[in-house]
Amino acid sequence: MDTGYVHGYTEPETRRLGDQADTLAELLHAGTAYPAGSRVLEAGCGVGAQTAHLVTRSPGAHLTAVDVSEASLRQARARVGGVDFRRADLFDLDGEYDHVFVCFVLEHLLEPEKALAHLKTLLRPGGTITVVEGDHGSAFFHPRSEHAQAAIDCLVRLQADAGGDALIGRRLHPLLTGAGFAGVTVEPRTVYADRSRPELVAGFTRDTFTAMVEGVGETAVARGLATADGWARGIADLRRTTGPDGTFHYAFFKATGRNP
Amino acid sequence: MDTGYVHGYTEPETRRLGDQADTLAELLHAGTAYPAGSRVLEAGCGVGAQTAHLVTRSPGAHLTAVDVSEASLRQARARVGGVDFRRADLFDLDGEYDHVFVCFVLEHLLEPEKALAHLKTLLRPGGTITVVEGDHGSAFFHPRSEHAQAAIDCLVRLQADAGGDALIGRRLHPLLTGAGFAGVTVEPRTVYADRSRPELVAGFTRDTFTAMVEGVGETAVARGLATADGWARGIADLRRTTGPDGTFHYAFFKATGRNP
Repeated sequence: MDTGYVHGYTEPETRRLGDQADTLAELLHAGTAYPAGSRVLEAGCGVGAQTAHLVTRSPGAHLTAVDVSEASLRQARARVGGVDFRRADLFDLDGEYDHVFVCFVLEHLLEPEKALAHLKTLLRPGGTITVVEGDHGSAFFHPRSEHAQAAIDCLVRLQADAGGDALIGRRLHPLLTGAGFAGVTVEPRTVYADRSRPELVAGFTRDTFTAMVEGVGETAVARGLATADGWARGIADLRRTTGPDGTFHYAFFKATGRNP
Repeated sequence: MDTGYVHGYTEPETRRLGDQADTLAELLHAGTAYPAGSRVLEAGCGVGAQTAHLVTRSPGAHLTAVDVSEASLRQARARVGGVDFRRADLFDLDGEYDHVFVCFVLEHLLEPEKALAHLKTLLRPGGTITVVEGDHGSAFFHPRSEHAQAAIDCLVRLQADAGGDALIGRRLHPLLTGAGFAGVTVEPRTVYADRSRPELVAGFTRDTFTAMVEGVGETAVARGLATADGWARGIADLRRTTGPDGTFHYAFFKATGRNP
């Protein structure tokens, strides 16, 4: 079944999402803590990788976490307690919330601005939205490699073919503003790894980013976007950036806005 | 005269360097303050754009600022007082210093690691080096444009043809380590501009980055790297990123190391 979700629903992918969330928790969640008693919606919680960090940082909030995939929700329920998990399509959601949190979801949607506009209808006046997305155009590294770049470009292309946008981070400000949010601010949250930061080299460059690109290899080759050899070379060159002389840069973007 | 310095020595370029330094002073100089009485060398001070900020932040330090261009030094002397300005090639420098500061210089050198190794011989044991460089591969923006990207690629190419590397930021860790410095740490210092940060849209996207790319237009067209039309379109598209829906991302890298 082609679900349209570029990263798939495999076991290694579930592990990767957990590794990524743990490595990046401080980077992505810093500044996000909701008051006790506030009604918080996580739209698109997937396997609960970010949900776990929301609960830790906002222990008194009432958290509702929604996803379209029942299989993902099963894993989320097993991973995180104290959360009201529900299966629903983002566009069918109703209710009223004080805060909405969306992480790594808009990048997969055909109409992200429309999704944001719908989420805005679920917020009380003055309620806030927080959106976190990556941007694969922010990935650059040493040693440079056109093969590695081509592999990343394949992932961007596959995500575009599935109706998404792997370069969405740079668009968050116009998207939130266009959806009618007020006081929109966007901050880059940058990961930079070199040999002086071995935990990021392993946790991000190797186990998060390279693993993510690697995950679409079969599809990229099957669709003729890469040759098997070219792909293998690209992955090998990405791995080379985890060597003693290697460096890796990637920027996430964290946006906040208010329902006026 | 082809000096090999990709940005040239024109009056608008001098103004651009001053604008850039003022807009980015906090971003690039934060964390750099030298104790009173310490002997500080700025290697490659150019027109003194960064020298002015060094003096402001380390008023008690004894600052020696060196450049290879007498014309640049004349402007630097007119801009900044209380500095011992000297004309010399970086590789001919001698003396002993407690700290060395190098900003936007290595990107223009054929052998940056050799330059760093020479600067290391000028540092007392335990003395520090601070290096700031950009990386044009970190430039991405909305709306996306292949014409704008092609114009940036021309600048990267011209700098490479002149023996430099406009993508050097990502290489600072291996370069400093390779030159023998100890305790090397590198931090990205990111500029992100959107309509909520109008001073950065004007001061960085328009007056620093786009102006810098624009500055090599005649050369790029003369050397056949771009057509006049393609170039004009690229610059227009870069300017479009300063519009209400536009965003712009760029990363500088700041490295420090110690002479063991």
